[in-house]
Amino acid sequence: MTNKLESFTLAPGFRAAAAACGLKPSGNLDLALIAVEAPCSVAGVFTTNRVKAAPVLYDQDLLAKNAGGIRAIIVNAGNANACTGPRGIDDARQMAALTAYGLRCQPDQVLVLSTGVIGRHLDMDKLTQGIATVTSAAAAQHGALVAARAIMTTDTRPKVASASFKIDGQPVTISGMCKGSGMIHPNMATLLAIVTTDALVVPELLQTALRQAAYRSFNCVSVDGDMSTNDTLLLLASGASGVEIVATEDTEITEKRINGDKSSESSVPSMAYQRFVAALTDVCIDLAKQVAGDGEGATRLIEIRVAGAQDEAQAHTVGDSIARSPLFKCAVHGGDPNWGRVLCAAGYSGAAIDPDRLSLSFGVAGAAQVQVVADGLPVDYAEREAAALLREDPVYVNLDLGLGDAAATVWTCDFSKEYVEINAHYTT
Amino acid sequence: MTNKLESFTLAPGFRAAAAACGLKPSGNLDLALIAVEAPCSVAGVFTTNRVKAAPVLYDQDLLAKNAGGIRAIIVNAGNANACTGPRGIDDARQMAALTAYGLRCQPDQVLVLSTGVIGRHLDMDKLTQGIATVTSAAAAQHGALVAARAIMTTDTRPKVASASFKIDGQPVTISGMCKGSGMIHPNMATLLAIVTTDALVVPELLQTALRQAAYRSFNCVSVDGDMSTNDTLLLLASGASGVEIVATEDTEITEKRINGDKSSESSVPSMAYQRFVAALTDVCIDLAKQVAGDGEGATRLIEIRVAGAQDEAQAHTVGDSIARSPLFKCAVHGGDPNWGRVLCAAGYSGAAIDPDRLSLSFGVAGAAQVQVVADGLPVDYAEREAAALLREDPVYVNLDLGLGDAAATVWTCDFSKEYVEINAHYTT
Repeated sequence: MTNKLESFTLAPGFRAAAAACGLKPSGNLDLALIAVEAPCSVAGVFTTNRVKAAPVLYDQDLLAKNAGGIRAIIVNAGNANACTGPRGIDDARQMAALTAYGLRCQPDQVLVLSTGVIGRHLDMDKLTQGIATVTSAAAAQHGALVAARAIMTTDTRPKVASASFKIDGQPVTISGMCKGSGMIHPNMATLLAIVTTDALVVPELLQTALRQAAYRSFNCVSVDGDMSTNDTLLLLASGASGVEIVATEDTEITEKRINGDKSSESSVPSMAYQRFVAALTDVCIDLAKQVAGDGEGATRLIEIRVAGAQDEAQAHTVGDSIARSPLFKCAVHGGDPNWGRVLCAAGYSGAAIDPDRLSLSFGVAGAAQVQVVADGLPVDYAEREAAALLREDPVYVNLDLGLGDAAATVWTCDFSKEYVEINAHYTT
Repeated sequence: MTNKLESFTLAPGFRAAAAACGLKPSGNLDLALIAVEAPCSVAGVFTTNRVKAAPVLYDQDLLAKNAGGIRAIIVNAGNANACTGPRGIDDARQMAALTAYGLRCQPDQVLVLSTGVIGRHLDMDKLTQGIATVTSAAAAQHGALVAARAIMTTDTRPKVASASFKIDGQPVTISGMCKGSGMIHPNMATLLAIVTTDALVVPELLQTALRQAAYRSFNCVSVDGDMSTNDTLLLLASGASGVEIVATEDTEITEKRINGDKSSESSVPSMAYQRFVAALTDVCIDLAKQVAGDGEGATRLIEIRVAGAQDEAQAHTVGDSIARSPLFKCAVHGGDPNWGRVLCAAGYSGAAIDPDRLSLSFGVAGAAQVQVVADGLPVDYAEREAAALLREDPVYVNLDLGLGDAAATVWTCDFSKEYVEINAHYTT
């Protein structure tokens, strides 16, 4: 696992390019292209917001038809192309067509992503020029890092992560980038994320793997509780490594198992699939934590571990509620061990918790850790030590529900005056 | 309807007193007593947080046993008596017993409310002295306004409202007070509120009336989305006016109707009951709006009217989601007509809306109003005029879902840096 910027590359088979076409008032890079030599498999997870941006509707439609034959993703920042009606859909389709023209492929081989301000039509003149630039031969020399920079909006830094592992001695790479800082709340991939791999995977299995990874990564972050209209996570598999990931030795049986068919309960996923999902989850968690840590106005990453739950969904619900609480996040910002707010947020989460069984501590197990609540009651604790733990980065919050053996981890950030500053004057 | 502070009194039959017993570090008033000459009917609506403060558990238990024979409410601010285990329950019971001793009534005639920091035991020495003071003969001369001041925590001003109406020519008064500024989110009465009336109402009907009023008032406010452990709304009916409110001419039938018994669908509530609920709802809405307008760090009240819904619950769900959105509330704070955030929050509310039917305007109907979205599409609007409307107090947001005839109104406030400032250092 690495998330070093200087050495970042996409998985073998992929290339990236970027341009500044004038969509960002700052004049910074605002257009990125991810392209692949031969048609590849793609899986996608999208926002569940009922108000979906045009590129989300366009991509969902395209993936239903051609998830096995994708050649490129064109991404713009500075304008979300959301709440733009039929013209928005036309603009997304036009972005794909222009990209296909530049790359000499078919329009239905190009996915489209947009991020930025909601409710404004795209400037297609600027995009036409920009797409001509990123699809030109000269742009083929660009590295992947320029693309990671081009998709940023209020992000303060590009976000990348890569992992390698071996299957039967053959190396496989998973490498991705994402953007996201505000309007971040777990429920399907929150933000824009593009992950590439050189493994060979059929679209159906790629989709299953991506859903599994998203559940424990991008669906576990919250910055402000606002779910975006544009959230999209895409996973592209070029197959350039020549290593095929199969579900089991008998693929058909595994797919039945994954789909909950009880007749095939005895079959287990192949070792290759398990390694692939594990590495994919690691990459997605790394990217998701970067999003939470770079939340708008954030000064610290907060990792909330909820254990002792009846099942993982219960742990997730409680962690999510804590991660959304402005009061808790303000307290962390001030280094105030106001643990009542953690219990309060657990209490209104909707999960069936028992207040008398809650235990809470701050800090990392094994290192400095301060317990503040045991079995629902306050513990006499060193307030100064607890406050010091809340000023570290990351901040660790450990809540035990005392009801079972399941656990979940959720990431968020502290809540600062800068969040208000950034968001009081975003469009004006 | 009035909410003038200088002339504020409780309904006939009630008296109030207050003291500073040292629970607030500031030395301000922190203990209030509301007392009534003869045993009266009481209805209550409480937090649905699973982590409930000791006084909430105590009051729920007491109301189940003696809702027709209450003589007093003792309220402290500065300490929520929440997450305090069995000792917290003992302390609440002791507060009731001390109050009963001072007033020469029975302990099971006294309700208890607490608000303030979570997770600390009450200082019972201070409270014993304070309760002796507020129950003394001298304190009987105190006005109700001192009590409204004593229950404040981060509130910047006391919150009171009164209404009078006539039944068969006889005057009836409804008059209440509340506190609440942070940890405010609709779901049962959010905050502490005490409403008094001199009408004569049996506890069951009083409870029905209170639930109806709460649904359109306290359950429609949000400051930060955090539901408190202590939220309580109490309604006391002294009967001092001699005017009895009956459900219908035949009370039994109406109760069946209220409880959804279809066999009595033809019976309608009495005119007296309808007037009572209308006035009670007015008083509760007035108090609820004061809470939203005095939200922690707030500079403006925001009224969100969601119309064109399939039913009131759908309208409420959408309004609630918008009222919780930090992004939308920051935009209002900055006077930024970033309407995409309103549609985005409507989209993730969980309500089954149709993006293509949404219409949105800012401002009051009939007065200056700027439409920004029609049938899901941006309208060419005067940005300067829209920004000006977002800088007025209150700010009016009107969203039409275009699906039906139902509507709901929800109140919240803008989100400022002061909210962070207040909550970064609350306990330390």
